[in-house]
Amino acid sequence: MIKTIEWTDTGVVMLDQKRLPTEEIYHTYTDYEGVAEAIRSMIIRGAPAIGVAAAMGIALGVKNAAAKPSGEELDREFDAICRVIAGTRPTAVNLFWAVDRMNAVYARVRMLGTEAIQNKLIEEALATYREDIEANRAMGRMGQELIPDGARVLTHCNAGALATAGYGTALGVIRAAVEAGKKISVFADETRPWLQGARLTAWELAHDGIPVTVITDNMAGHFMKKGEIDCVIVGADRIAANGDVANKIGTYSVAVLAKENGIPFYVAAPVSTLDLSIPDGGHIPIEERNPDEVRKIQGVAITPHGVPAANPAFDVTPARYVGAIITERSVVRAPYDETLRATGAAFP
Amino acid sequence: MIKTIEWTDTGVVMLDQKRLPTEEIYHTYTDYEGVAEAIRSMIIRGAPAIGVAAAMGIALGVKNAAAKPSGEELDREFDAICRVIAGTRPTAVNLFWAVDRMNAVYARVRMLGTEAIQNKLIEEALATYREDIEANRAMGRMGQELIPDGARVLTHCNAGALATAGYGTALGVIRAAVEAGKKISVFADETRPWLQGARLTAWELAHDGIPVTVITDNMAGHFMKKGEIDCVIVGADRIAANGDVANKIGTYSVAVLAKENGIPFYVAAPVSTLDLSIPDGGHIPIEERNPDEVRKIQGVAITPHGVPAANPAFDVTPARYVGAIITERSVVRAPYDETLRATGAAFP
Repeated sequence: MIKTIEWTDTGVVMLDQKRLPTEEIYHTYTDYEGVAEAIRSMIIRGAPAIGVAAAMGIALGVKNAAAKPSGEELDREFDAICRVIAGTRPTAVNLFWAVDRMNAVYARVRMLGTEAIQNKLIEEALATYREDIEANRAMGRMGQELIPDGARVLTHCNAGALATAGYGTALGVIRAAVEAGKKISVFADETRPWLQGARLTAWELAHDGIPVTVITDNMAGHFMKKGEIDCVIVGADRIAANGDVANKIGTYSVAVLAKENGIPFYVAAPVSTLDLSIPDGGHIPIEERNPDEVRKIQGVAITPHGVPAANPAFDVTPARYVGAIITERSVVRAPYDETLRATGAAFP
Repeated sequence: MIKTIEWTDTGVVMLDQKRLPTEEIYHTYTDYEGVAEAIRSMIIRGAPAIGVAAAMGIALGVKNAAAKPSGEELDREFDAICRVIAGTRPTAVNLFWAVDRMNAVYARVRMLGTEAIQNKLIEEALATYREDIEANRAMGRMGQELIPDGARVLTHCNAGALATAGYGTALGVIRAAVEAGKKISVFADETRPWLQGARLTAWELAHDGIPVTVITDNMAGHFMKKGEIDCVIVGADRIAANGDVANKIGTYSVAVLAKENGIPFYVAAPVSTLDLSIPDGGHIPIEERNPDEVRKIQGVAITPHGVPAANPAFDVTPARYVGAIITERSVVRAPYDETLRATGAAFP
């Protein structure tokens, strides 16, 4: 079992995803600022995992609050913690979902005294963790029915155990298909600039003995055209009310190529990734990261000195390319503005 | 002026394209085996440059032949040289075009005596060099009319001075547009696995003061969808009679994304890249290179130990995605099976 993140008595423990697959190193964060920095620097990444980390970070921050704060002192402290956590990354809505969820608990229990508040917030953080794994298992059960026996499945980035509390969204569906006795093989886009596919998806699938072949991002279309890919499944960082999907940069290209080649394109994401407050993907903020992530690979410069690079971390795939969205409640299809609302998503 | 390859009295000099942009190192090859290995290992790459290198390699091999060979000895030596040169890389047809061209000269002059044969073959190799630059200039003049003033142009891989004897095919068109007074900026796909875009195209354009931004291959679709790319121009390694274009892996994906976004997709290539002997792209051999080129970047491993990777070096873009093919004789458009033949290509 891959332990992406864990709540312990000494702090929040995370597997360092910047060091995989070369090194398997765990860090223990003992304050919320450390958790925030781990999210920002992508020690932990993947929308559902970011949500769990945010909840645990807030719980940790309140656990560390001054011995006997007054109600108002704790209110201010709580708000400050939430602001720092919410400011780490802009695109994955699970982060804000987790902050809102912790806020709602805090509002409910804030009159109960510091210790009870701390316990309730820790309980809630542990619930987001537990529920995320359960959601992934449910997505797997329902989603695997879309994957034919013998399928060669393309995935982009990492939507696996490492992107969640465990089991994974897109990789959870693949795992469930394998557990159902199907013979599945996977093409993993390496996913520049951060190489989540080459480093993390390949590591996870090899760990589970599921056959995986790494390809560069620009090879996916070639293998689709040659008839060597049967379906595509990816995760998501935010899904708008009309079904537009923000996900790792390059997802849009994969979706267009799948459509052009008549290959089904599926998205697996928990309802915590739905943002029904925005009508379409044009309202999703796209994080721009440091261009050095493009200009250097594992610390080695690949571009001439001084040449600029762009580094949008996500793109938006219009709903018309999406064959189905697999959530833990149901598998929904177009018209998404009706079907997504019917799932009773967290942001109604 | 960038000196990709040069014939000198001491041997064939090449700029080492594996070391750019970090180091600018020139190698002098004094025998044809060295030239063959330079082609195979991609010290020199790019279809037109490979053609020139092949011609120079053959001329060098015959120049080094034993002092006074009999006619039959020289025939055998010549055939052996051509076999080694032709066996270096399978996809770029310019290699075979150059071998055929040197063969035709040899057949014409083989009765003239060793020294005259040597001189004629050196002259021919120098002619391929000179003509390639002239062809690129002609492509530039005609092709730049397709590029609007103010255009933001996407290119994939490197089809520049480094891929040719000089000036470039796709980058030659961009250079000509700039020389015509147009304000042009370039997006360079980094072009994994070998990073020709990030390393070579960025280096060349920065060298000439043409604004260039490096992006990862999976970002091209995102910028097209956002309306930030006005046209695409790439080179080619082989073009079939129906206009199907083999070019660096990832070109097909770029072409599909361009079509989906209503953006013109152009190919610039000399007639030495046309292979009218094959009806379509299905007959073009696609080189499979060592998977370690994918598994490692600049020597650093990025995948878990033992995980397989695929490494097709080229893909085929069906003619229906190609808005125009810019050759040194004319700019041709569909129906390519008629228009390409009308250019009077080298392989009729």
